[in-house]
Amino acid sequence: MDERREQLISVALDLFSKYPPEDVSIDDIAAAAGASRPLVYHYFPGKQALYEESLRRAGQELAGRFEEHAEGPLSERLYRVMGRYLDFVDSHGPGFSALLRGGSVAASPGTTAVIDEVRRAAHDQILLHLAVTEPSAGLRRTVRAWIANAEITSLDWLADRSVPREELQLQLVQEFVAALTLTAAREPALALELADFFAAERPEGPTGRLVRELANLLTVPNLAPQLTRLATS
Amino acid sequence: MDERREQLISVALDLFSKYPPEDVSIDDIAAAAGASRPLVYHYFPGKQALYEESLRRAGQELAGRFEEHAEGPLSERLYRVMGRYLDFVDSHGPGFSALLRGGSVAASPGTTAVIDEVRRAAHDQILLHLAVTEPSAGLRRTVRAWIANAEITSLDWLADRSVPREELQLQLVQEFVAALTLTAAREPALALELADFFAAERPEGPTGRLVRELANLLTVPNLAPQLTRLATS
Repeated sequence: MDERREQLISVALDLFSKYPPEDVSIDDIAAAAGASRPLVYHYFPGKQALYEESLRRAGQELAGRFEEHAEGPLSERLYRVMGRYLDFVDSHGPGFSALLRGGSVAASPGTTAVIDEVRRAAHDQILLHLAVTEPSAGLRRTVRAWIANAEITSLDWLADRSVPREELQLQLVQEFVAALTLTAAREPALALELADFFAAERPEGPTGRLVRELANLLTVPNLAPQLTRLATS
Repeated sequence: MDERREQLISVALDLFSKYPPEDVSIDDIAAAAGASRPLVYHYFPGKQALYEESLRRAGQELAGRFEEHAEGPLSERLYRVMGRYLDFVDSHGPGFSALLRGGSVAASPGTTAVIDEVRRAAHDQILLHLAVTEPSAGLRRTVRAWIANAEITSLDWLADRSVPREELQLQLVQEFVAALTLTAAREPALALELADFFAAERPEGPTGRLVRELANLLTVPNLAPQLTRLATS
């Protein structure tokens, strides 16, 4: 491993985390690394290559944060993962935004491949923890849609931090539980596994709190009768 | 209005709907329009300009499909809109995919602006129909996340049509109703409006079917006791 090269990538990653790619020049990277312009070009053909390499590293780091021991209630595991995910979003804000907004001038098949790889890692980790034998197309779809939700929600949050981080972390996990339940309502095989999922959950965890919040809705005037009307028609 | 120019845009839109932008050349457009290459360049500085203009038209057309009379149950209105939306996705498949996948070589601030405009139109229409006075940041976030869900789901569906169109149309609407309910569980003001929403819904509509599907989940062995345990802890 070439230390100088690694240092350049590290410096580039830092700059690309803080500024959109179009605002970072090779000169900026050279200056921040205490290196000459020709030295940077010795290692990388140009800014795009350095951008994509630093992105690959960031993608690997992010994917690593999805790994979690398969112990304890599922929603609490996801809650811990989302904490690490939001830490990452927080510390790579401008770069994260530029990357996920397709119109970045630095977007390329290479950058798309990195994003797709991170999405796949998230998707696979979730299915691993669900431990569902033969996940259906519907369940895979639910997981991908929830990942898209987490992405768009993170972008919103970076632009306007009106929601506290811990609240967002909890909401995203609860949205996953709700999406899983909705999918189970359509798929008898998944519905059978849902009882085990809820059995492992704790009252003070994200799922327990969600169930109580939803139960509280039933005390809203006229809501319970309307739900009963629809349920028994 | 210059008819020749309009014809070129129409032909370009058709080609960009059928093939990714990188596979369409100015020569292809000229040939399909029965025009010469110089004539195309007379109207447009290059392929990117023609791509962006045809995209703007497609965006306007799509945004127009979101408009719906404010009559009848809300989930049935959304169901009709989603029918028109999926028609659009169906007939503009490859172009739609290329556009929403950020790595398209033709992605630019111009194309991003078009996508953002369509998203904003969808967002505004939904809030208009919800008729919620002063939508909270949380509700806006829910709407944007659901739009992201509809986008990613459409891309999945284009790549693998394992789910029938009508089923997808119904699922997306039901996912909106679920997301709305979840948001209401966090926001007392929205919860009060939720009773009116359910009161206007019909048993045979998307919401009525959803409520019965969720109620059916309670017959799954051991699920109801686990939910009761969490709700009453």
